[in-house]
Amino acid sequence: MAAGKGPGAARGLLQRLDAGEVVVGDGSFLITLEKRSFVKVGCWTPEAVVEHPNAVRQLHMEFLRAGSNVMQTFTFSASEDIMESKWEAVNEAACDLAQDVANQGDALVAGSICQTSLYTRHRDETKIKKLFRSQIEVFVRKNVDFLIAEYFEHVEEAVWAVHVLRESGKPVAVSLCIGPAGDLHGVTPGECAVRLVEAGADVVGVNCRFGPSTSLETLALMKEGLRAKGLKAHLMVQALAFHTPDCGKGGFLDLPEYPFALEPRVATRWDIQKYAREAYNLGVRYIGGCCGFEPYHIRAIAEELAPERGFLPPASEKHGSWGSGLDMHTKPWIRARARREYWESLQPASGRPFCPALSKPDV
Amino acid sequence: MAAGKGPGAARGLLQRLDAGEVVVGDGSFLITLEKRSFVKVGCWTPEAVVEHPNAVRQLHMEFLRAGSNVMQTFTFSASEDIMESKWEAVNEAACDLAQDVANQGDALVAGSICQTSLYTRHRDETKIKKLFRSQIEVFVRKNVDFLIAEYFEHVEEAVWAVHVLRESGKPVAVSLCIGPAGDLHGVTPGECAVRLVEAGADVVGVNCRFGPSTSLETLALMKEGLRAKGLKAHLMVQALAFHTPDCGKGGFLDLPEYPFALEPRVATRWDIQKYAREAYNLGVRYIGGCCGFEPYHIRAIAEELAPERGFLPPASEKHGSWGSGLDMHTKPWIRARARREYWESLQPASGRPFCPALSKPDV
Amino acid sequence: MAAGKGPGAARGLLQRLDAGEVVVGDGSFLITLEKRSFVKVGCWTPEAVVEHPNAVRQLHMEFLRAGSNVMQTFTFSASEDIMESKWEAVNEAACDLAQDVANQGDALVAGSICQTSLYTRHRDETKIKKLFRSQIEVFVRKNVDFLIAEYFEHVEEAVWAVHVLRESGKPVAVSLCIGPAGDLHGVTPGECAVRLVEAGADVVGVNCRFGPSTSLETLALMKEGLRAKGLKAHLMVQALAFHTPDCGKGGFLDLPEYPFALEPRVATRWDIQKYAREAYNLGVRYIGGCCGFEPYHIRAIAEELAPERGFLPPASEKHGSWGSGLDMHTKPWIRARARREYWESLQPASGRPFCPALSKPDV
Amino acid sequence: MAAGKGPGAARGLLQRLDAGEVVVGDGSFLITLEKRSFVKVGCWTPEAVVEHPNAVRQLHMEFLRAGSNVMQTFTFSASEDIMESKWEAVNEAACDLAQDVANQGDALVAGSICQTSLYTRHRDETKIKKLFRSQIEVFVRKNVDFLIAEYFEHVEEAVWAVHVLRESGKPVAVSLCIGPAGDLHGVTPGECAVRLVEAGADVVGVNCRFGPSTSLETLALMKEGLRAKGLKAHLMVQALAFHTPDCGKGGFLDLPEYPFALEPRVATRWDIQKYAREAYNLGVRYIGGCCGFEPYHIRAIAEELAPERGFLPPASEKHGSWGSGLDMHTKPWIRARARREYWESLQPASGRPFCPALSKPDV
Repeated sequence: MAAGKGPGAARGLLQRLDAGEVVVGDGSFLITLEKRSFVKVGCWTPEAVVEHPNAVRQLHMEFLRAGSNVMQTFTFSASEDIMESKWEAVNEAACDLAQDVANQGDALVAGSICQTSLYTRHRDETKIKKLFRSQIEVFVRKNVDFLIAEYFEHVEEAVWAVHVLRESGKPVAVSLCIGPAGDLHGVTPGECAVRLVEAGADVVGVNCRFGPSTSLETLALMKEGLRAKGLKAHLMVQALAFHTPDCGKGGFLDLPEYPFALEPRVATRWDIQKYAREAYNLGVRYIGGCCGFEPYHIRAIAEELAPERGFLPPASEKHGSWGSGLDMHTKPWIRARARREYWESLQPASGRPFCPALSKPDV
Repeated sequence: MAAGKGPGAARGLLQRLDAGEVVVGDGSFLITLEKRSFVKVGCWTPEAVVEHPNAVRQLHMEFLRAGSNVMQTFTFSASEDIMESKWEAVNEAACDLAQDVANQGDALVAGSICQTSLYTRHRDETKIKKLFRSQIEVFVRKNVDFLIAEYFEHVEEAVWAVHVLRESGKPVAVSLCIGPAGDLHGVTPGECAVRLVEAGADVVGVNCRFGPSTSLETLALMKEGLRAKGLKAHLMVQALAFHTPDCGKGGFLDLPEYPFALEPRVATRWDIQKYAREAYNLGVRYIGGCCGFEPYHIRAIAEELAPERGFLPPASEKHGSWGSGLDMHTKPWIRARARREYWESLQPASGRPFCPALSKPDV
Repeated sequence: MAAGKGPGAARGLLQRLDAGEVVVGDGSFLITLEKRSFVKVGCWTPEAVVEHPNAVRQLHMEFLRAGSNVMQTFTFSASEDIMESKWEAVNEAACDLAQDVANQGDALVAGSICQTSLYTRHRDETKIKKLFRSQIEVFVRKNVDFLIAEYFEHVEEAVWAVHVLRESGKPVAVSLCIGPAGDLHGVTPGECAVRLVEAGADVVGVNCRFGPSTSLETLALMKEGLRAKGLKAHLMVQALAFHTPDCGKGGFLDLPEYPFALEPRVATRWDIQKYAREAYNLGVRYIGGCCGFEPYHIRAIAEELAPERGFLPPASEKHGSWGSGLDMHTKPWIRARARREYWESLQPASGRPFCPALSKPDV
Repeated sequence: MAAGKGPGAARGLLQRLDAGEVVVGDGSFLITLEKRSFVKVGCWTPEAVVEHPNAVRQLHMEFLRAGSNVMQTFTFSASEDIMESKWEAVNEAACDLAQDVANQGDALVAGSICQTSLYTRHRDETKIKKLFRSQIEVFVRKNVDFLIAEYFEHVEEAVWAVHVLRESGKPVAVSLCIGPAGDLHGVTPGECAVRLVEAGADVVGVNCRFGPSTSLETLALMKEGLRAKGLKAHLMVQALAFHTPDCGKGGFLDLPEYPFALEPRVATRWDIQKYAREAYNLGVRYIGGCCGFEPYHIRAIAEELAPERGFLPPASEKHGSWGSGLDMHTKPWIRARARREYWESLQPASGRPFCPALSKPDV
């Protein structure tokens, strides 16, 4: 199968999803750029778009090459309550960078907002909507292709976001950062999905906080909630690339390894192929990643679903499927690893004999 | 302590080492660029320097920012026996990229060669030296600051490399990819070090194939070998960022996880601070990394040794030492992680309940 | 607190339970006597009572000394369908051994039956009840104190057993070998408990197949089922001494380690103290063990609940609570282990670096 | 192959070993009887021989049945410095129990002494030899078949023991409780073996403190030490049944799990078959066990070496080799476990997801 752009270059988000196509999301910005030294832990803000634009552009480019159909603006927490006067320049620069790269391949630009720092202190709908509206105005001015509201712990705040996003006339996707236990007020995933679709979201799902399998558990509950109410919406998932079977309601924040010792939990490319396949089988068609998702993880989504989509991503020029690059190795035991069965059944060791398999989350 | 360039900007390798200063090496190119989709597993060749120069420049820049004092040319396996007619353009472009970035900070450029594909078939000294000489001619023409011969499994071939490198009149560093059991002909690390220094190397050590602690074990044996013979040389170490207590003589190549499922073995930044400290205590002054070393791992070396050196790397602008960025977190149990004792004693879990701690290496 | 018999020597099962007292059950016979070489894996039959009576008497004696208030006759599978003509002699000898030991302490004798080999082939109530009735006639003739029907996978067969046991006029306890998912026909634990109490059982609960925490999960569901129906009964639990968080509906039978490699799963005495406390807190008052429960595990139950009961078991003459026997050790780091906090927080290592934490059960 | 006594019933220790026969030792008394509640942790003394003689006799009987050719008197620490005036009655009763059982099968009686509590305070050869001599006088009076001095941390004290034992005219076996690093004064295993054989020992080896593989490493070093000096002696090994790859010089005493949380480290029967085979291949012919060795572990030694010896132990009447008892099971996936390959390659899980593989020993 040839690597290529795919047939859908000029088509919008809903055109693609309504046609049953897979939309591959992008991956990790905050955590990845922290490891490249452009983002600071604790702040987790995207001032790199103005301070180190080449670094951000390069990462967008890597995701594009890996198969992403969406360049999300790197505008996480870039609202006035958190970034103060810098907020506007950051949102503008982020749009420019995303668009610049999107134009070089088959990708849409998504303007992206997240939960505010206000909600847990005062549930002040007017103030919070005003914050959202400021960012959206920039996105509309820059004419992004669609909008994403993501990383919401409380469905109520996400519903307010959907209200604001709808005003723009652009397609609206919304993701909560919840697990199977529901939002932080105890609203179940099924009920959350219902409220978001009733508020006007075109695509609903989850991102961040939980690893691949846990996130798909939550998606299954959302899907069932919508089905029970007779509602229809497209589904999206952008999980962590960290395995988190042991985390509680707050997700990976509550694991003792967060945020500086998550390495042993990072998914392999094969783990992500499994995730992509399971998401697809569940009916999810917008499939991407969040913290920890490196370009090769996104490539794994695009390669796993290549049979359905009919093409491979550009990055596959440098990647044999299922380890096939090893088939010419001089050592026979390494050649023997050039096959799918080998990598599918391998249980990788940690090389850390003093470390347990699971952690007890802090509460 | 302020982040900065450090005092040594214009001084050569031996000036620094003779003065007892620490030289921070750079990190992983092949494995890191494979994850960013610019290098292919199985080939492991650096054609990215001509195909995707921005990606390579960006990685050099990240290491510079993280504190590296050396920009190694990305010329691994870029000799005629492997890259055929492309070899010369690749070596030239790699020098240009390394110099371009080195000029923006306190770093030297090192022209770098590695073992040939010929040696295991015919131990033909003349042919092999001719291959080395071709690459060195490019490096001399481009006027790099010093030369590195690295990743040799057999000390004999490394000795030949040292002979050729000496002809250039530039300082010579040489690294074997061996563990405590010695080279593949059974020459002990101590004896290897002796032969390399007697051949004219200024700096000797190991790179690749083994993780932080195993590599330091090998260094200790090399140091003892030199001491017993009354020889003097500077020591260098550029270990894997993967924990490999369970691998045999061939190093990580023989682990079943190589090369596609090494994730759970990746060192944390705290593991690398420990590595830097132990290397320093052993008397090693050229300290860097090999496969798996991301920019934040290099930053960890520079931060650990900041008290000795008197300055932090530029990347520390975005990094609080020992987790201090967490001290303003809203959740008390996350604030409690903003201290050295916490991260030093943490044994991180893998989140993989079905995976063992160690693997049985293939033979 | 003195070690002793306790006040209740001559009182019956229901007298004790109705008064809110704890009744400590006994432990493992089949698995323990297999390790002592008197029982054969695959047969799992109790012919040792006639072939090696001293070995069986010794084990009863060890449980009595450890604090058991019940000597269960070693008559598991000792029905005619399995043991053929030997069945009667085995049941008689088992009663004699249990009574002989019970008379030396504060223990009751319980005649014990289990599920038949017939049920899964023909659900023939008449034939099955006839088999139960034969064993019960021996128990009545030997005048045991009460009756136990245990290790039933299907609640229907257990209900038939209760019918037969009720005919004797003696108190009736009944245990299923089910987990939280219910019996093998899918009847939930809550509904199982209801049917057994409605059939006339005085005490209901679970034994075997699942480890301490899983068994208590099932008990909680049984308790809730009874509460919802307004029914009252005493609760009993006799869990495995093996940790089984990873097993499916069939319990430890489906783990790949069954039955010859369960060693790493064996509970420590501290794990069992936790189990006893949690069972007590849940309202369970008949607390014992099944496969894997050695005498020191039973002693751990009796020691944990000594504050409530007012006395320690005879075996505590040879056991300091919470490691206090170590307080005179010559090595200070071993003396430091003579305290409750140490043992409660210890996560014991397996010394098996190649083994995972959990298994994938066979189906 | 029939279970039976074996041909050697009336023959002495050296007759057997000189003829190249395997002598199967016995197993754990202190730790096993602690779990049965007849020995107290911290004291670790054998007063059970007078307080609970049936319990001790039963355990001897189980080892005899499992295949032991030696009944060691349960006289560990039964010297005057530790047991005061009780010492003599304990030694006498222990001889009677061992002989009573030995007479029922093919077993020799070994009078057994261990290191004193005096040595580490005053290296007073006269006083210490006097203590040894008292116990030996009882053994000579009771006419045991041979003598064992075991559990010595310092070879010097063991040499003194050999001197005293030699005076009896009976065969002398001697075991140190050391690992590959040698005795607590730093004497290497090879040198220890040389000193003991030069002092007059007929059989030398190790017991206790270290698990199966570590103990065999030490034996290999002892064998090499004797070979280098041209000395000849029979070799014996009585390892722990606990896996201890992570312990330091002091053995399992220094593991944080000692003595109350060693359960996950207990060897399976298959681990012990491997141990027996490796010991045999190394040339060791006296093969038994120490703490943690239950009767089924001794049976595993006797079954593994049955092809060489020509007979199975009596206990094999209740044990199919390599899981063959499972071949009639109704569930196909359990029948599939009735074969050697299954159990040999199984890596058993611990069912403890929060526990690491290895511990850091206390110092």
